[in-house]
Amino acid sequence: MHESGALKRQQRNHQQLRGPKVECRQHERRRHMSAEHTRMALATALRQQLAQVPLAKITVSGLCEAAGIKRQTFYYHFADVYALAVWVFRQEVADRILSNASYEEWSAGFCQMLEYLERNKVQTYAVVNSLSHRELEQFFFHALRPMMVAIVAQLTSDPGTSPGEQEDKPHLHPEDKDMVIDHYTVTILGHLFHWLANDMHIEPEAFVRQIEYILRGHVRHSIIRLAATCR
Amino acid sequence: MHESGALKRQQRNHQQLRGPKVECRQHERRRHMSAEHTRMALATALRQQLAQVPLAKITVSGLCEAAGIKRQTFYYHFADVYALAVWVFRQEVADRILSNASYEEWSAGFCQMLEYLERNKVQTYAVVNSLSHRELEQFFFHALRPMMVAIVAQLTSDPGTSPGEQEDKPHLHPEDKDMVIDHYTVTILGHLFHWLANDMHIEPEAFVRQIEYILRGHVRHSIIRLAATCR
Repeated sequence: MHESGALKRQQRNHQQLRGPKVECRQHERRRHMSAEHTRMALATALRQQLAQVPLAKITVSGLCEAAGIKRQTFYYHFADVYALAVWVFRQEVADRILSNASYEEWSAGFCQMLEYLERNKVQTYAVVNSLSHRELEQFFFHALRPMMVAIVAQLTSDPGTSPGEQEDKPHLHPEDKDMVIDHYTVTILGHLFHWLANDMHIEPEAFVRQIEYILRGHVRHSIIRLAATCR
Repeated sequence: MHESGALKRQQRNHQQLRGPKVECRQHERRRHMSAEHTRMALATALRQQLAQVPLAKITVSGLCEAAGIKRQTFYYHFADVYALAVWVFRQEVADRILSNASYEEWSAGFCQMLEYLERNKVQTYAVVNSLSHRELEQFFFHALRPMMVAIVAQLTSDPGTSPGEQEDKPHLHPEDKDMVIDHYTVTILGHLFHWLANDMHIEPEAFVRQIEYILRGHVRHSIIRLAATCR
């Protein structure tokens, strides 16, 4: 019984993680623009209602009424209220992380994300608990990885960096670069999961300061060491 | 509907994570010994059946028959077959990790655990998926932390180390020691969750070699740096 529930949940979540089903072909741009508008209207309606009631009390009908769209249109985009919440959540999380994706400021971006999760605690746990372990891991992994890509790009010579900066920086084999990016992404992820599993026990700022203090210099050190080995 | 299912599951799992409900008072030792014997008999029956059928096909009746105990006795110890599986799983995992909990050999213990999870893949995912995010994190956190405690104890001066060894080793404030232990525990945990979320995509030995390569020297480095700051 539990298994079929989990399966149903996974099937339901399958679509929401991949985003709404909109064909993006050129000739459908008009429809796409309108679809974007519909989703944004639903997102706004959800945010407004979440300020007053918990996610579990929000209905598709209520959202449709607030956004001025038909139920049928809602279901064209999202399987249910949770699917919409996951979509909104993903965007909010990604925006916050990427707003400060640099070596000097990654912790500010990560901290902003934690503060967002804490401020929207009920919604956070509602979304988190509606995802399977695999989905949760992949959701945050893909949200956090770009931050690490930006950090590692800053520390290594890369076509992305300016020629003047390139000379001082170590060069990494692409495979090693991926290894470093993945390692620090899952390290941050491990901290995030521990924080979520412990009811957000530490205040975001102190939490990020701790991680930053322990990690200081480690990313750079890993890169220099890997660059020094022959590949 | 999903929520009440998750709640039921959490309530059911609440007991199994804390272990079977046996009062350990002195005067109940005889009953305790017999309880231990019952659980071991059920664990053996479960392992034997798992060699032939998946966890979902195993019934309480079948296990009771194989172990020669009454259904009532089963339910005195475990809420269902999953609760028994989690208990067995926890013991197997903890044994493997702790068998090599030293700075030089932690990777061997961790590798043995991954190999066990891979060899029992169906059971692993059955158990993992029956736990909530919080339970899963806490399960592996508590299973892996003793490994890190042993590693950090080896690298720092501690009442546990012999007097001859103490002098060369940095001394850490207990709070900093916990911070280092927790940091590296969640780092390993992050890797483990990523591996589980990606269908055990890397072969355990190569996987552990990668983590070990990146982390080499980092634990020692964190300790020395923290020991140098005034607290």
